[in-house]
Amino acid sequence: MQALRLNNGLSYCPDIAKPNVSADQALIRLSLAGICATDLELVKGYAGFTGILGHEFVGVVEAVDNPEHQQWLNRRVVGSINIGCNHCDACLKEGAEHCQNRKVLGIRGKDGVFAEYFSLPVANLYSVPDEVSDEAAVFTEPLAAAIRVVKQLESIAIKVIAVIGPGRLGLLIAQVLALAGYEVTVLGRSESSLALPRHWQLKTALIQDIADNCFECVVDASGQVSGFRQALRILRPRGILMLKSTFSTLEPVDLSKVVVAELTILGSRCGPFADALTLLKQQLIPIESLIDGRYHLNQGLAAFDHADQPGVRKILLHP
Amino acid sequence: MQALRLNNGLSYCPDIAKPNVSADQALIRLSLAGICATDLELVKGYAGFTGILGHEFVGVVEAVDNPEHQQWLNRRVVGSINIGCNHCDACLKEGAEHCQNRKVLGIRGKDGVFAEYFSLPVANLYSVPDEVSDEAAVFTEPLAAAIRVVKQLESIAIKVIAVIGPGRLGLLIAQVLALAGYEVTVLGRSESSLALPRHWQLKTALIQDIADNCFECVVDASGQVSGFRQALRILRPRGILMLKSTFSTLEPVDLSKVVVAELTILGSRCGPFADALTLLKQQLIPIESLIDGRYHLNQGLAAFDHADQPGVRKILLHP
Repeated sequence: MQALRLNNGLSYCPDIAKPNVSADQALIRLSLAGICATDLELVKGYAGFTGILGHEFVGVVEAVDNPEHQQWLNRRVVGSINIGCNHCDACLKEGAEHCQNRKVLGIRGKDGVFAEYFSLPVANLYSVPDEVSDEAAVFTEPLAAAIRVVKQLESIAIKVIAVIGPGRLGLLIAQVLALAGYEVTVLGRSESSLALPRHWQLKTALIQDIADNCFECVVDASGQVSGFRQALRILRPRGILMLKSTFSTLEPVDLSKVVVAELTILGSRCGPFADALTLLKQQLIPIESLIDGRYHLNQGLAAFDHADQPGVRKILLHP
Repeated sequence: MQALRLNNGLSYCPDIAKPNVSADQALIRLSLAGICATDLELVKGYAGFTGILGHEFVGVVEAVDNPEHQQWLNRRVVGSINIGCNHCDACLKEGAEHCQNRKVLGIRGKDGVFAEYFSLPVANLYSVPDEVSDEAAVFTEPLAAAIRVVKQLESIAIKVIAVIGPGRLGLLIAQVLALAGYEVTVLGRSESSLALPRHWQLKTALIQDIADNCFECVVDASGQVSGFRQALRILRPRGILMLKSTFSTLEPVDLSKVVVAELTILGSRCGPFADALTLLKQQLIPIESLIDGRYHLNQGLAAFDHADQPGVRKILLHP
């Protein structure tokens, strides 16, 4: 089968063996996959992953190992990406995404989805409702990550939120927050980056026009240390910074305002797939307008170049 | 009067004019002052302050401007250090310490207490109970900052806490947390730094012996970026980092674990003086064992050299 492998650089492999399907796993045939910021970081060396890349997908179950899982055959599915050990403290209390021995699809110890076939435990799968197209379903994972922000803010009395970074993830977060009733402003560095959020009827502003200390809550989805610095700058005392970005480089950051202004920083990662699929079924997010290109797996390197251009949001891959 | 002034380096000034006392302020004669980590940072250039240094003090009110404040005359006092504008949003909601236009005693726009006399608004003053010696009262400000940690953790279900940095502030935080019923471990880099916390009956450990991901809550009072990195390392997923340290240098910090492990970072600064004086009155903290030296103001530069030595905790100044 064809696949995109990372091993000291990304390469297209035309003929790799189909994965074996071990106990309680499903073999899935890829329909569509999405390139996400984490994939771009992994190619640049973040986390030192080697193997088939990719974790955003929609596909069809082609085989299962356990006869009890027969009902999954031929179902259109998406899947959560963390595979925990299922018996440590973190797995039992916090979920597989915080297991220290976890594998993560296409990120850590487990081949990913930029391939004709891949495997995943049946426990990680979610059926895609008929109302949700493949082009929408492929956004389930980042949309779930966006919903996670709302879940973390639920118990905090906040109404006004700035989202830094009008990229793939930032726009989903802004839209989910707006649907949840927050007054959201999307902040970007250029007018052109704000065109799509405006088209989505979201309030926007250039970040350099925002005064110091004026937002009580800021979500940093910029993926860049500069965005994190801006978030600190515009937060008012005792404000909350939701951090969605990991940076690949070790750049200097002045954290003194965190202490002096008694800021709270909340790290935020994976979210609930079921909620994301429900939201996609309601078709309230014009999600397909995030798609900037589609490539066949055998054009994967060009797809990655495209995805890494400034202002490009979602690039999809198909077999 | 004598004073220690910061202006491109610290210097001893033998003959400066006594401060004027404007509306609602008190003139205070210094009894004892403490050198704190922030003072050492200010001398190194942090925050660009120029003027008389110092903010930890106990003294006696010698004059007041407003006749309605006559009852403060000759009282032994300590004082909170932030002077807000009293009409902005932050002053009304969060307190003077978060006013954007605040002055801060010996730190920002307001001469400090390393002098024979200094002024402070009467509204900032607290009477020192007779049971509290000058040597204990001079710790009111850092003890209040330690109590602030307990206040911020009140609504969070946590029992076990590590405190990184067995220095001046770290030990006060550890002791206050222990008195509040938490199971506290003080972490330091050398056996010698852990002698005093052991003498205080606190549990201790070398930080390099602590495994990754094992504490649900860590207070970083190390004052160093290395302490902050260690705090991130030993926190378990969804753990809480209370940040009490500001660093003067812009060193690289990898914040990716904040996102991946969904950590919470809580900045923590000034605390309640009244609670600190109550705690000092109870004499439950052997606070005077933190004192490593006393100097006359005219030996102020030697005092600063001493305070900046590794392992030294509190150095006091007197007129």
